[in-house]
Amino acid sequence: MVTKEQVIKFMAAEFPQSKCLVEAVSEGSSIIRHRVGVDELRPGGTVSGPVMVTVADVALYVAMFQQIGITPLAVTTSLTVNFLRKPSSDKDILGICRLIKVGKSLVYGEVTLYSEGSDDPVAHAVGTYSIPGARQSKAEWSSRNPE
Amino acid sequence: MVTKEQVIKFMAAEFPQSKCLVEAVSEGSSIIRHRVGVDELRPGGTVSGPVMVTVADVALYVAMFQQIGITPLAVTTSLTVNFLRKPSSDKDILGICRLIKVGKSLVYGEVTLYSEGSDDPVAHAVGTYSIPGARQSKAEWSSRNPE
Amino acid sequence: MVTKEQVIKFMAAEFPQSKCLVEAVSEGSSIIRHRVGVDELRPGGTVSGPVMVTVADVALYVAMFQQIGITPLAVTTSLTVNFLRKPSSDKDILGICRLIKVGKSLVYGEVTLYSEGSDDPVAHAVGTYSIPGARQSKAEWSSRNPE
Amino acid sequence: MVTKEQVIKFMAAEFPQSKCLVEAVSEGSSIIRHRVGVDELRPGGTVSGPVMVTVADVALYVAMFQQIGITPLAVTTSLTVNFLRKPSSDKDILGICRLIKVGKSLVYGEVTLYSEGSDDPVAHAVGTYSIPGARQSKAEWSSRNPE
Repeated sequence: MVTKEQVIKFMAAEFPQSKCLVEAVSEGSSIIRHRVGVDELRPGGTVSGPVMVTVADVALYVAMFQQIGITPLAVTTSLTVNFLRKPSSDKDILGICRLIKVGKSLVYGEVTLYSEGSDDPVAHAVGTYSIPGARQSKAEWSSRNPE
Repeated sequence: MVTKEQVIKFMAAEFPQSKCLVEAVSEGSSIIRHRVGVDELRPGGTVSGPVMVTVADVALYVAMFQQIGITPLAVTTSLTVNFLRKPSSDKDILGICRLIKVGKSLVYGEVTLYSEGSDDPVAHAVGTYSIPGARQSKAEWSSRNPE
Repeated sequence: MVTKEQVIKFMAAEFPQSKCLVEAVSEGSSIIRHRVGVDELRPGGTVSGPVMVTVADVALYVAMFQQIGITPLAVTTSLTVNFLRKPSSDKDILGICRLIKVGKSLVYGEVTLYSEGSDDPVAHAVGTYSIPGARQSKAEWSSRNPE
Repeated sequence: MVTKEQVIKFMAAEFPQSKCLVEAVSEGSSIIRHRVGVDELRPGGTVSGPVMVTVADVALYVAMFQQIGITPLAVTTSLTVNFLRKPSSDKDILGICRLIKVGKSLVYGEVTLYSEGSDDPVAHAVGTYSIPGARQSKAEWSSRNPE
């Protein structure tokens, strides 16, 4: 089983520039946090759409790892995001992912996004990851990052 | 008519952190460039999905401005992105937008994304912008940014 | 509160050609059944995609009625469907809808589709309904269909 | 090369219940017509969403055949439809498909839908077909349908 600590270590090594924080990882699900500061805002004092898309994409990636192991080379093949409400300009964005299908070559799930402290979603995403050469890529990453 | 220069000035003022460059603006269309460097890459030596989503989102925003005037408070309501090929790690991403419907309250269009120098798209997006209080927001932005 | 019986009566009156059966209606959710026979099959002995899309569309429509009252003129504005597994050729399709946002002008939700008797979804959809002139259309339908 | 006549023959044999008519087939594109009568209408005197989805789905299927040969077992894996205007209740729906990527295992394209006689699209769709065992399925269909 992949632990939260292993995912955090992986993300720090492979996505050092990412502002997404792994809050939780469990059975086919994940919670990702994105700090909101000046860089994340857009006119109207609200969080930009691409920030929310990034959270959704990372949340799916991390939830998938929990199910199939850390698989760096898995790639997004489709992503649909619906923006539902204006996010708060002074609250972090939280994305809660739930996987719907974990297949051999494709993983599909949904992510609900919130401004921290509110129960009303600001956005909702569904997306598919493709797992090309999953075994090789896992082996490769492990061999470069021995425990 | 909104010119390329006006859009560039607007983007620099309102999205100073953006790495998207406005290459062209014409009748219901736009071309956006995103430089690709270490920050845009992910494992596998390819451009991260959120970078391409950002280009698609900005390309729709800018093409809409050409049609309805600069409207800062227009917000994305939905975005669907399909990733088609692995982008080059050493080429800029170009997004070419074509609007399909320009209504009073909604604008809908498509964006095809390329690695510069290739004719094979790396991704394709469709998205909708909502124009809430378009007139007010335009007036407000103009009054704060007199010529 | 709109009851299951009211929705069934509405569907029979307004969509007499529909093969969708309303199985359940409750707080922001619905279950729709579609019988599967020769007309629903396609090469490969599986249920055609448009049948599943129809179930998703009706499930959102009905779940919305439970929340905002019967609103015939509400129209779908977007629908994204991901097909996950081959449905059985000899099982009914069931669609289970859960609304995610019920706003004044837009309703957004998700629908998970199953072949009856299996816990593995065959498809998953998200969609948005627009409620134009909701009050008028409800009043109009009620006046034509007095209790 | 697959001709329009071959596609029409295939559709008649395999989808006898379909109301979609193949109007044109050419290099990576197709035009599909759907007659609009009482069965296609919904409250508000407009064409139901699933009819338009059906046209989009068939248009992609047929355009794909032009490129890769008749492949009955190709299946839709994702479909996103945006509804843009109210279709006429007394005009046929026409769907014009353009393929964007034709890969070995996936085909992706877009379909613009019109009420006949209007230049303003009523809907726009993007979708992906998966080609599992394309060769076998083509061979199988040909052997059952010798010229």
